[in-house]
Amino acid sequence: MKLTKFILATCAIGLVTASVAHSQTVGKAEDQIRWRQSAFTTLSWSMARIKANVNGEFNKEQVVQAANTIQTLAHANISSLFVPGTAKGKGWKNTEVKPEFFTDKEGAAKAWATFSTEADGLAKVAATGDAAAVKAQFGKVGQSCKGCHDKFHVED
Amino acid sequence: MKLTKFILATCAIGLVTASVAHSQTVGKAEDQIRWRQSAFTTLSWSMARIKANVNGEFNKEQVVQAANTIQTLAHANISSLFVPGTAKGKGWKNTEVKPEFFTDKEGAAKAWATFSTEADGLAKVAATGDAAAVKAQFGKVGQSCKGCHDKFHVED
Repeated sequence: MKLTKFILATCAIGLVTASVAHSQTVGKAEDQIRWRQSAFTTLSWSMARIKANVNGEFNKEQVVQAANTIQTLAHANISSLFVPGTAKGKGWKNTEVKPEFFTDKEGAAKAWATFSTEADGLAKVAATGDAAAVKAQFGKVGQSCKGCHDKFHVED
Repeated sequence: MKLTKFILATCAIGLVTASVAHSQTVGKAEDQIRWRQSAFTTLSWSMARIKANVNGEFNKEQVVQAANTIQTLAHANISSLFVPGTAKGKGWKNTEVKPEFFTDKEGAAKAWATFSTEADGLAKVAATGDAAAVKAQFGKVGQSCKGCHDKFHVED
């Protein structure tokens, strides 16, 4: 087998492997919109829990639960629910995503990466139980949420 | 200080500490119902993702994301959203919890503990990438969901 043929054959095997391992698109458009609205609302709940703790009595266990939820969802590929055909539509309510989210892929990926990094930082400081550090990092997570919402979310 | 006085004083300190560290109740009744509906819908999304992978092409990364989401939410104290006054009411939709969930606290705690244990097992096997083991454990998680729904959830 010539080298070029060998390389082509190897690439072909690679493509088949990639095809076997590709990420499943799950659900209908309505499911996908409801699921992403639910995931973001679960993030809101978790942010509200941490806010209550940094502004009031601090319960480490509750903060850890909420920070872990935010971190896990930051890495759960929620963006896979923004499939073509879901730029408009209704889940629990009409979607509030801006069309730019589907066209500015680089901007969307960058915004999500910032959020993921800040979420990792929040889970880390939550585990220490340092209320002041949690408050500071909570602010950074909030800023990353706002950064993305300003660009890609139609506010109520 | 007499021993009884010392014990009473120690208990008093313990009570104050417990008070400082108590878990915050966050949100109004409508928020709480919407948040818990969102958390359970995020669990449904994650279960749907794993189902698609064990019945079709298996993508380890997606299965790990979904299993970690289920495990984290299993330990996020969603039960704190079932506060008195939320047995009836509307979040995204009317709540579908049965009144028994609020009265049979032991049964509810037991059902959730079973789910948490099975969710831990699912995250563990997901990390190995063993599709057959994920399929088997996914069935056990599904059974634990069904066990709780049969007792405490008004099915559609």
